[in-house]
Amino acid sequence: MPNSPPPTKPKPYSTQSVAPRAAWRDRLYVVIFEADTAAGKWFDLALLGAILLSIVVISLETVEYFENSQAWLDLFLVVEWALTVLFTVEYISRIVSARRPWRYVFSFFGIIDLLACLPLWLTLLSFDSHALTIVRSVRLLRVFRVMKMMRMLREAESLKMAVWNARDKIFVFLATVLVAVTISGTLMYQVEHGTEGNLSQFTSIPQSMYWAIVTMTTVGYGDVVPHTPTGKFISAALILLGYSLIIVPTGFISAEFHAQKVAANHSTRTCPHCFREGHATEANFCNHCGAALIEA
Amino acid sequence: MPNSPPPTKPKPYSTQSVAPRAAWRDRLYVVIFEADTAAGKWFDLALLGAILLSIVVISLETVEYFENSQAWLDLFLVVEWALTVLFTVEYISRIVSARRPWRYVFSFFGIIDLLACLPLWLTLLSFDSHALTIVRSVRLLRVFRVMKMMRMLREAESLKMAVWNARDKIFVFLATVLVAVTISGTLMYQVEHGTEGNLSQFTSIPQSMYWAIVTMTTVGYGDVVPHTPTGKFISAALILLGYSLIIVPTGFISAEFHAQKVAANHSTRTCPHCFREGHATEANFCNHCGAALIEA
Amino acid sequence: MPNSPPPTKPKPYSTQSVAPRAAWRDRLYVVIFEADTAAGKWFDLALLGAILLSIVVISLETVEYFENSQAWLDLFLVVEWALTVLFTVEYISRIVSARRPWRYVFSFFGIIDLLACLPLWLTLLSFDSHALTIVRSVRLLRVFRVMKMMRMLREAESLKMAVWNARDKIFVFLATVLVAVTISGTLMYQVEHGTEGNLSQFTSIPQSMYWAIVTMTTVGYGDVVPHTPTGKFISAALILLGYSLIIVPTGFISAEFHAQKVAANHSTRTCPHCFREGHATEANFCNHCGAALIEA
Amino acid sequence: MPNSPPPTKPKPYSTQSVAPRAAWRDRLYVVIFEADTAAGKWFDLALLGAILLSIVVISLETVEYFENSQAWLDLFLVVEWALTVLFTVEYISRIVSARRPWRYVFSFFGIIDLLACLPLWLTLLSFDSHALTIVRSVRLLRVFRVMKMMRMLREAESLKMAVWNARDKIFVFLATVLVAVTISGTLMYQVEHGTEGNLSQFTSIPQSMYWAIVTMTTVGYGDVVPHTPTGKFISAALILLGYSLIIVPTGFISAEFHAQKVAANHSTRTCPHCFREGHATEANFCNHCGAALIEA
Repeated sequence: MPNSPPPTKPKPYSTQSVAPRAAWRDRLYVVIFEADTAAGKWFDLALLGAILLSIVVISLETVEYFENSQAWLDLFLVVEWALTVLFTVEYISRIVSARRPWRYVFSFFGIIDLLACLPLWLTLLSFDSHALTIVRSVRLLRVFRVMKMMRMLREAESLKMAVWNARDKIFVFLATVLVAVTISGTLMYQVEHGTEGNLSQFTSIPQSMYWAIVTMTTVGYGDVVPHTPTGKFISAALILLGYSLIIVPTGFISAEFHAQKVAANHSTRTCPHCFREGHATEANFCNHCGAALIEA
Repeated sequence: MPNSPPPTKPKPYSTQSVAPRAAWRDRLYVVIFEADTAAGKWFDLALLGAILLSIVVISLETVEYFENSQAWLDLFLVVEWALTVLFTVEYISRIVSARRPWRYVFSFFGIIDLLACLPLWLTLLSFDSHALTIVRSVRLLRVFRVMKMMRMLREAESLKMAVWNARDKIFVFLATVLVAVTISGTLMYQVEHGTEGNLSQFTSIPQSMYWAIVTMTTVGYGDVVPHTPTGKFISAALILLGYSLIIVPTGFISAEFHAQKVAANHSTRTCPHCFREGHATEANFCNHCGAALIEA
Repeated sequence: MPNSPPPTKPKPYSTQSVAPRAAWRDRLYVVIFEADTAAGKWFDLALLGAILLSIVVISLETVEYFENSQAWLDLFLVVEWALTVLFTVEYISRIVSARRPWRYVFSFFGIIDLLACLPLWLTLLSFDSHALTIVRSVRLLRVFRVMKMMRMLREAESLKMAVWNARDKIFVFLATVLVAVTISGTLMYQVEHGTEGNLSQFTSIPQSMYWAIVTMTTVGYGDVVPHTPTGKFISAALILLGYSLIIVPTGFISAEFHAQKVAANHSTRTCPHCFREGHATEANFCNHCGAALIEA
Repeated sequence: MPNSPPPTKPKPYSTQSVAPRAAWRDRLYVVIFEADTAAGKWFDLALLGAILLSIVVISLETVEYFENSQAWLDLFLVVEWALTVLFTVEYISRIVSARRPWRYVFSFFGIIDLLACLPLWLTLLSFDSHALTIVRSVRLLRVFRVMKMMRMLREAESLKMAVWNARDKIFVFLATVLVAVTISGTLMYQVEHGTEGNLSQFTSIPQSMYWAIVTMTTVGYGDVVPHTPTGKFISAALILLGYSLIIVPTGFISAEFHAQKVAANHSTRTCPHCFREGHATEANFCNHCGAALIEA
């Protein structure tokens, strides 16, 4: 970077070389895609509000009370159209201002943004409205935008890192859960199936596996429970075993967070000779080049 | 502050300059608002007892067994009146002894203290006693006083600090839960809704979201459970996913506590010779250069 | 201790001075009360087995299937009598061999040991056997002996220490739970009580508090659940809040364990001058007396 | 081992000295028993897929929907035969290529591998197919192979170590749970048994212990719940106590993971000049005295 010749460097995206790239498009880009300016922050907050509002409206539309009230349905329709127009404008603005429009269009968020606008427009084409019910729910996927907004938070990164660093352990954990669920599900199926005049809730091995997952995660709905004494004894043992098993990931995620914290607290002492950072507080000499460190 | 002329400084709250500020008011202030003296501690304990007693009485009044027994109701009424008189005396004492009475009156605890006394006095004004039922429950808000009493404990501070330091992570966590609940709630609604002759418990998207929260936190009431095989399969997957997600905050709160513990065990004592920091509280000499440390 | 004059020290518990203190009583004492010798270990294991067997028998006696079978009841009676004779012999041996018999008799375990023997002997006195049902369950208290046996394990000590060190935090936590349970219980009672033709399960404030505890600890039986949309919304919010609250103790117990582990790993470097131990690995000088430490 | 005379050492498993040990058997051994080569990895992945497929098929066979459809049952039979032939070929290959065939045959995995093949072959001998139902489920034990494959992952080792290091604590924990379950189960049995016209769900002490385990692990099915006010009060107290108890293992597993992480980040490299230990893996010079470290 410091070696690139500064005098001959062309001005990037100048209005002279690329004619249609107007200044307003750059300003639009900064507002929509970045969050460093005040305008960008307000845009993100407004978008967050609009997304939350659309979640509320789409959710409430499925509630029987509102389904039977024409006044509410009319209100919801108005809000939905307003939000659809808003999202459509935002979608077009993103395409217009993006430096590589096609890349955005085919990105994960580009497709979700499109799906959020489409359903209501399609109703205008007199499609069967019933068939659109599922499609309409697709708009709820816009909630993923909330996660994208979190990107501005440093904390989200550290959370993601902790989970990412523990990925191998999580894989091992899930494999162990798979083994435990298979074995205990099959065992309980053999013990409980066909007892009590075929009224047992362990009707099949998949059902027993569902029971095993619901039990081992301590969710415990109670829709499938053992009824025979043997079944209760075995499941009590499995619960204790499963509980011991399932606390393990808590432990390693916790250890990950702790390691991160320690790393963050590590001194930013810099070697005056080789400029390497991160020396321990008690170090006298740079552990890379051997030069004496300045006392912190 | 250091620049204010010390010789002309008036004796604060002296009985000479502010005539009605009698010595008994200062003593009352110390007893009521502070917890350092023996009298203050006994006052706090007595208040704690009175609050717990009032919680028990108000709670029991709603139990059918006691509602139907005139003898119990009479006893409760006597206890309530006794406590109301006590709380009223305490409220007036607080106003009288407080240095800035209005500030106390309009503070959070001032309003709660008032609300704890009012309801029973209002019954004397022959208000509709039924309308007072909700107002009476308001007295239970006095339980917040228990939290205020905990302020004397150093531990409460460290707990609050740990939660406070993790606030950004908790925000990210809640946002992630919101996304997960929305997506999984909608998904389960699409899968389960309208199955089994409309007997499915997933009647609407908000209901499905309620299911998602109850499930992901491993509460698992069992009032809303999947009935189709597809629904069970998806919810088993969501449970494992949700479980992995929900253990994350445990990890970072745990890391916070640990960081606090480490910080508490290390002083910022600095060696006067080699300027090394972080000597243990009980150290007399620098463990690096052997120079004598200045007593902390 | 080093200052006590050794030559005139009398031989403790010698057979000469205290006539009835025979050698066999000392040997009995070592076997029963101590666990360092092989005989002591076998005695403890045998006692553990006898206690577990008595738990199994007393538990199974209450199961309807065994209650209706005379053959099983006869077998149980034989086992019970055998165990009672055994426990009685053990109880008398403890009294005989104990150096301060009365102190043992009135200790926690002395009383439990007595209660474990009595019930069956009392049946011989033709007491009402029905009245003895509860008394018989008292024998299950012998299970506490299991905890006493764990005293030989170093791990039990560290577990106890971790819980003990966190006692203030646990107190604060329980107080916070009390506040949260009172507020949320009352709130849900106001919202849910009397709805749905008085079929709501939130029949009283204590019942609502029971719901709050069952929910916040994520047990979630499902015997008391909200039925109104408002109640579901509020309880979903309370679940998330309560979940955040209840994970806190996990965090501090975890931090306690970690601190213990670190303390255990701390170097055993000893100052050659003042013999103080526990110097940090990087220390050059004793932080107590300033003497140079020998390089580890 | 170092004393064995090297010059006369015969080439192990050479085709010259041990005639039947052909080169193809060694190659087979590497593919089947080891995972370092590309072929070995593909073999493991294919085996994993076959095992998962067999789990799916055996599970689905018990579902009523598929049980009633001849087309599906035919498909399942074909897949099962294909997998059985595959597993049989694999079993024979393992015996042929193993260096100590009998040791493999009588090992845990050898027996499981045999049990996975047998059931279907036995049906050819016109055994009662109903009696084979349980035996067929035995094939699901092949899921343990998944755990064996995890052995290649370093993470599985560290998980196992953490659990192993905490084994004494887990033992103490389980003993404490046993005591708590016995006491609280008996207590609730005495309180709840025989109430409400004998409709109480606490029918016996074992049933009450089952309740105690389901409650204390926060599974909370809701099939056994207290109905009397006293029972609810006691169980609310037990839940809070049990919750405090059951979070303890989370704490120590977490501390174990953390200790491992710290140990993994510290090498035992020692400075040749000042003999200080614990230098970072990437260090070139001692951070205490500046002397060059010997490359690890």
